[in-house]
Amino acid sequence: MPTPLRPPLRLGLAGLGTVGIGVVKIVQTHADLIAARSGRPVVITAVSARDRTKNRDADLSDYAWESDPAALARREDVDVFVEVMGGHEGPARAATEAAIAAGKDVVTANKALLAHHGQALALAAESAGHVIRFEAAVAGGIPVIKALTEGLAGNAMRRVMGVMNGTCNYILTRMQSAGLPYEAVFEEARQLGYLEADPNLDVGGIDAGHKLSLLAAIAFGTRVSFDKVELQGIGSVSIDDIRLADEMGYRIKLLGVAQMTGRGLEQRMTPCLVPTSSPLGQLQGGTNMVVLEGDSVGQIVMRGPGAGEGPTASAVMGDVIDLARGLRLPTFGQPAATLAEPVAAIAAAPCRWYLRMTLQDKPGALAKIATALGEAGISIDQMRQINRDDQEDDDAVVLFVTHKATPADVAHALHSFGATGVLLGQPVAIRIEDV
Amino acid sequence: MPTPLRPPLRLGLAGLGTVGIGVVKIVQTHADLIAARSGRPVVITAVSARDRTKNRDADLSDYAWESDPAALARREDVDVFVEVMGGHEGPARAATEAAIAAGKDVVTANKALLAHHGQALALAAESAGHVIRFEAAVAGGIPVIKALTEGLAGNAMRRVMGVMNGTCNYILTRMQSAGLPYEAVFEEARQLGYLEADPNLDVGGIDAGHKLSLLAAIAFGTRVSFDKVELQGIGSVSIDDIRLADEMGYRIKLLGVAQMTGRGLEQRMTPCLVPTSSPLGQLQGGTNMVVLEGDSVGQIVMRGPGAGEGPTASAVMGDVIDLARGLRLPTFGQPAATLAEPVAAIAAAPCRWYLRMTLQDKPGALAKIATALGEAGISIDQMRQINRDDQEDDDAVVLFVTHKATPADVAHALHSFGATGVLLGQPVAIRIEDV
Repeated sequence: MPTPLRPPLRLGLAGLGTVGIGVVKIVQTHADLIAARSGRPVVITAVSARDRTKNRDADLSDYAWESDPAALARREDVDVFVEVMGGHEGPARAATEAAIAAGKDVVTANKALLAHHGQALALAAESAGHVIRFEAAVAGGIPVIKALTEGLAGNAMRRVMGVMNGTCNYILTRMQSAGLPYEAVFEEARQLGYLEADPNLDVGGIDAGHKLSLLAAIAFGTRVSFDKVELQGIGSVSIDDIRLADEMGYRIKLLGVAQMTGRGLEQRMTPCLVPTSSPLGQLQGGTNMVVLEGDSVGQIVMRGPGAGEGPTASAVMGDVIDLARGLRLPTFGQPAATLAEPVAAIAAAPCRWYLRMTLQDKPGALAKIATALGEAGISIDQMRQINRDDQEDDDAVVLFVTHKATPADVAHALHSFGATGVLLGQPVAIRIEDV
Repeated sequence: MPTPLRPPLRLGLAGLGTVGIGVVKIVQTHADLIAARSGRPVVITAVSARDRTKNRDADLSDYAWESDPAALARREDVDVFVEVMGGHEGPARAATEAAIAAGKDVVTANKALLAHHGQALALAAESAGHVIRFEAAVAGGIPVIKALTEGLAGNAMRRVMGVMNGTCNYILTRMQSAGLPYEAVFEEARQLGYLEADPNLDVGGIDAGHKLSLLAAIAFGTRVSFDKVELQGIGSVSIDDIRLADEMGYRIKLLGVAQMTGRGLEQRMTPCLVPTSSPLGQLQGGTNMVVLEGDSVGQIVMRGPGAGEGPTASAVMGDVIDLARGLRLPTFGQPAATLAEPVAAIAAAPCRWYLRMTLQDKPGALAKIATALGEAGISIDQMRQINRDDQEDDDAVVLFVTHKATPADVAHALHSFGATGVLLGQPVAIRIEDV
């Protein structure tokens, strides 16, 4: 094998948590493999982390240490700034900006940073001829950014969907399989260390929403607009709904959907029913899945680990090896200066709905609700009255699956239920996504 | 949007069948999208096909016509030779060689050509600084070549698997769902136009074997060695085996597996049992699936359409847009000159087996078979005696699922069954692949 002709690509690695140590291990154990594939060696020259004294599962003695990640980013002996610290402000943002200002390429796993500042960072990098890559920021080890940006670049994308928060999918899957309520499984997940320090990042859909906003920017050529993502977490998903959906052949997932509609770019990260038999419905536990739909290709489904040392480090190294090979393209697939300002559409495309409510056991109660649905322009596909042992004697749980209706029509119907005088408590409405 | 600064990338398109016309349609309908993503226009300057007079579903009047694809490949106004003709010798090979000799980049959908001549073509292209891309040659619209070559480049690959011939998967799925024998479904598929002119390319596993050999070269850094792929088609899969496998929770798939073992590179394209609940087991009809397993990333599953105008043209255009963007890398991910000559391993890694046989209804018949298995060193995990209405009175169909055993041990056991004097007909042995 000929000696590589080109000089090494030198990485400055900011963050020595799980992912950072994963990157160190790949660089150290696969040096020959990476050099063969890249046509040049890839080396780490300097590292940075909050605590130098912490015991870490890797030998860092060959690397220079910087206590300030921005100083690391500016080092002369760093070609690529690898940011696996996390956080969308503070040191991560400052160091990334410093790296771009210093003329470095950036590889980042930081979805929050890009969801909030991706447009500004991409503009700055591109005006200086440098690139930002972020495969590890979305769906862990699944090379979905590459598939969407490059592999499917000949398609006008129709829809992008994803289950992209493993913790939420773990909680929903476990509720379903063990028949446990949300609160109990949430507590389990907390004790297993599956939750972020601020659990709302996971269960509130924020983390997954960040990822969706990045996919949407690439898919539709629009500026990242995380503030326009309709977010609804999984805290409101009840074990009753999981059970009833199951009986009808559905699973409830925290599903991200981005699509361009006649009214603009629709982005939502909300609980949805999907058919149990579909790939999304089959997805269990912490695994991630992304579905990419293009006008020529049809539907591509990608499934894999969404987090963890190895998978996330694999994604980081995919980006690093691209740079070592000289594969360079704009952050979001086309120059940031050419991305359109998206017209944000409140999710308005009609879809089928799952509606659950409790009615008083009065004559004509069901008829009143059915009438209210009809008056809101909503047709009923299926209706079921559920009898459960634990029910109050005079209550009746009623379930509707509607034909396609807009969210506005559903909101209108739910509002009008109040006037019927037969409703107990709040009705539940969950989208059914056709997948 | 700023005017693209770079001149157009000019394609010479050889082949105006389904895929070629799909490419024309994307280039024509998505010119703006492609220019925005590529930073330059992509245009077709000249085309070639066998029959100029054929009525085609596209306007070709702006393109120069060449009756000889090699002449097309050499044209001064062609930067990239796009080969979607097919065939591993004859005009496709001659034109591709002409393109490389003339200093053109090549985008091809031709798996047979690359499986037979990929190493020589890659060497020729790379020595002249040109590239050959072939996303469309493997698994249709699924961007699996890109995922494996680039996205997972930081991994030592463990195993690559795939269901990559839609016709075979259609036949096996239909046998299972309709309870029809192979011959009947084969005839259906023929009438539906699903089969190649030489059906053995499909049902003999040759087409899928070509694809597997390309994936193996990238995954393991070895020269393409299609001649070392163990091939077994689906013609021997009986409806009985499909039914019995189903009852035990398995599906039979024509599954390609490539893995590096202690003895060398194992490549096989054979019928295998996979769990019904696995993504591979769930795959129905003409859809393709590829499973990529790396030491860091774990398991990535990609699923999508494996053929057809839109999906295959999408893959071709992904490669074209890569070239328009200036993304260039060696054909098999590392220079062809550095690819190792693989030591071909006859598939020898132990696995579990499904064994079916018919025994004479003699006292001790089963014990004799069980003894023969034990003497061959094969442990039995499950055993079932099947009673069917259509059976001869004195026959007994017996089914074994073994613990892990090598193919050699199984061959030895099957051979020794003969000496027991209780066997009727030939026993059936099918691998169970752990997925």
